[in-house]
Amino acid sequence: MFPIDLGADPTIGGMVVTNTGGTRLLRYGDVRQNLLGIEAVLADGSVLDLMTALRKNNTGLDAKQLFVGTSGTFGVVTRALLRVVPRPAQRATALVGARDGATVLALLAHLERAVGDVLTAFEVISADALAPVFRYQPRLRSPFGAALPQFAVLVELSTTLPTERLPLDDLLESALGELVEGEPGEGISEIFPGKPAELWEIRHHVSESHRHEGEVLGLDISVPRSSLPALVDGARALVAEEYPFIRVCDFGHWGDGGVHLNLVWRAEDAPRPTAELKRELQPRIYELAVTRLRGSYSAEHGVGPHNQLFYDRYTPDVVKTLCRAVKAQLDPMGLLGTARLG
Amino acid sequence: MFPIDLGADPTIGGMVVTNTGGTRLLRYGDVRQNLLGIEAVLADGSVLDLMTALRKNNTGLDAKQLFVGTSGTFGVVTRALLRVVPRPAQRATALVGARDGATVLALLAHLERAVGDVLTAFEVISADALAPVFRYQPRLRSPFGAALPQFAVLVELSTTLPTERLPLDDLLESALGELVEGEPGEGISEIFPGKPAELWEIRHHVSESHRHEGEVLGLDISVPRSSLPALVDGARALVAEEYPFIRVCDFGHWGDGGVHLNLVWRAEDAPRPTAELKRELQPRIYELAVTRLRGSYSAEHGVGPHNQLFYDRYTPDVVKTLCRAVKAQLDPMGLLGTARLG
Repeated sequence: MFPIDLGADPTIGGMVVTNTGGTRLLRYGDVRQNLLGIEAVLADGSVLDLMTALRKNNTGLDAKQLFVGTSGTFGVVTRALLRVVPRPAQRATALVGARDGATVLALLAHLERAVGDVLTAFEVISADALAPVFRYQPRLRSPFGAALPQFAVLVELSTTLPTERLPLDDLLESALGELVEGEPGEGISEIFPGKPAELWEIRHHVSESHRHEGEVLGLDISVPRSSLPALVDGARALVAEEYPFIRVCDFGHWGDGGVHLNLVWRAEDAPRPTAELKRELQPRIYELAVTRLRGSYSAEHGVGPHNQLFYDRYTPDVVKTLCRAVKAQLDPMGLLGTARLG
Repeated sequence: MFPIDLGADPTIGGMVVTNTGGTRLLRYGDVRQNLLGIEAVLADGSVLDLMTALRKNNTGLDAKQLFVGTSGTFGVVTRALLRVVPRPAQRATALVGARDGATVLALLAHLERAVGDVLTAFEVISADALAPVFRYQPRLRSPFGAALPQFAVLVELSTTLPTERLPLDDLLESALGELVEGEPGEGISEIFPGKPAELWEIRHHVSESHRHEGEVLGLDISVPRSSLPALVDGARALVAEEYPFIRVCDFGHWGDGGVHLNLVWRAEDAPRPTAELKRELQPRIYELAVTRLRGSYSAEHGVGPHNQLFYDRYTPDVVKTLCRAVKAQLDPMGLLGTARLG
């Protein structure tokens, strides 16, 4: 199977130029790490053929890397050669309630130590991000009942080995059982083993449910993993003080340092128009993520018109100069791309 | 542990600028896939700080990629932030004799299907590459006796799970046992389970032993995995016809398409001086690998003075132009690097 697993359903070319990661990056890497070759059409109409099916090739500049994550500004990716991996024979999943961010990180460290080889997803959904799922998807039931924990963690193990060889359900049960004894145990509220399809359905409805709630400012942030609690707590503190009508609905891939930070509010509760609030909030959250926590304002969405301002603000001058030099060679008339990376 | 496992003992900076792979690329990837950040000193003495500890960051051009595999021509890599992985709790290894390249590929396909998650190495050593090991390392004994198989395959499984959970020795034994029944079985001559340390010692002495034999032209080639038999058989046919005094001693990482093709001879048997023979042979083997089999003339050694000629010959013009543009920005006076990538 092609291992990049996304909620959305983009084209392959779109995945390459944003270098998407998805929910199983922890195990399989992002698009860049699964890309063997590409073909790109350049601004002058010529075709650049880099479709070599090689896992190792170090003969100077690996030119395809220029097209990964650069939003199509250097060319249009028209073909790609992708690595595929053996499809797992079994999966085991559980939903774990955690009291705070430190407990979530301790749980992650424990699982990487105990079952690192077969850990394929570690998805975290805050209570405010999870509640709308059960409000708008009546078929989906909360295993926690009405009192959601601060963070719900979807843990997935998977393997190509058959159950007779390695019963994953047992393995997950015992790895989580050790928690009750161990250090993070105190912060763990509940553990629900569940069928993979049902738990993933909850996860995949998070983003959509937020749109039913009203206005959404969706930010796609990454920070070093150890700074994730500081990020989500910091965003909450910032909003609580000055924007009490907004809820921070964060969810994402703590295993690789990524968080979708959705700020959600009802237009009628807000003192100012939505567009104005978005312009005001976006730079404040990014300042927390990028300057204070040395993170990224775009973990896997690339650069587009929405974050052009922040590209201009945060990108080192040397990198901008390099981009201009490459752009001058490949697209001197500036025909391609929606972002200006110079 | 840092997962890149090499026979040699290079600096981290050297590993970044050649993008080394090593014997466990199959499981953990190459340096590029394990590199989170770098610091580079540029030709003007300025320091480019790209030391963000992020697993996901897609904010335009990922500038560190320019320094990976480009032999230091754009800057000197002075720091690196590397991914580490949990250390395996156990390993199981075996040496398998195979009659021909097709059998080796069938064995690889079988193992990826049966034990793909825990397969960490698949190293292949031809009889001519293996014989010198036992000639020059008297402590090491051939499990095959004197009659070496055409290819000896070192298979390694490893996992962070403990033996009680997943007995790897049993797993490897049963996965290899299935072969006798299955399709590749006919071509398998012998199977020797062995202690990891002993089997790896054989593997790690291959290259050194060749130097005791006389003159060595060492070529580091990769091709699509399915073309590996065509590469090693093709090289043998070429040499047998016109250079009967040369032995093709090939060994390497079939799991990721890489082969170290060492051509070995004694100076006194050769009709022409060593340097002349090397100049003559190198382009002929590369022509087979690169033009006929769509491979690479440098799988993990980068570009240096030795293969400048082939860089000039095989690199697409667009890529050379891009390199010149980047070089003009970062090192306009041409102070850095031993290869000319323009």
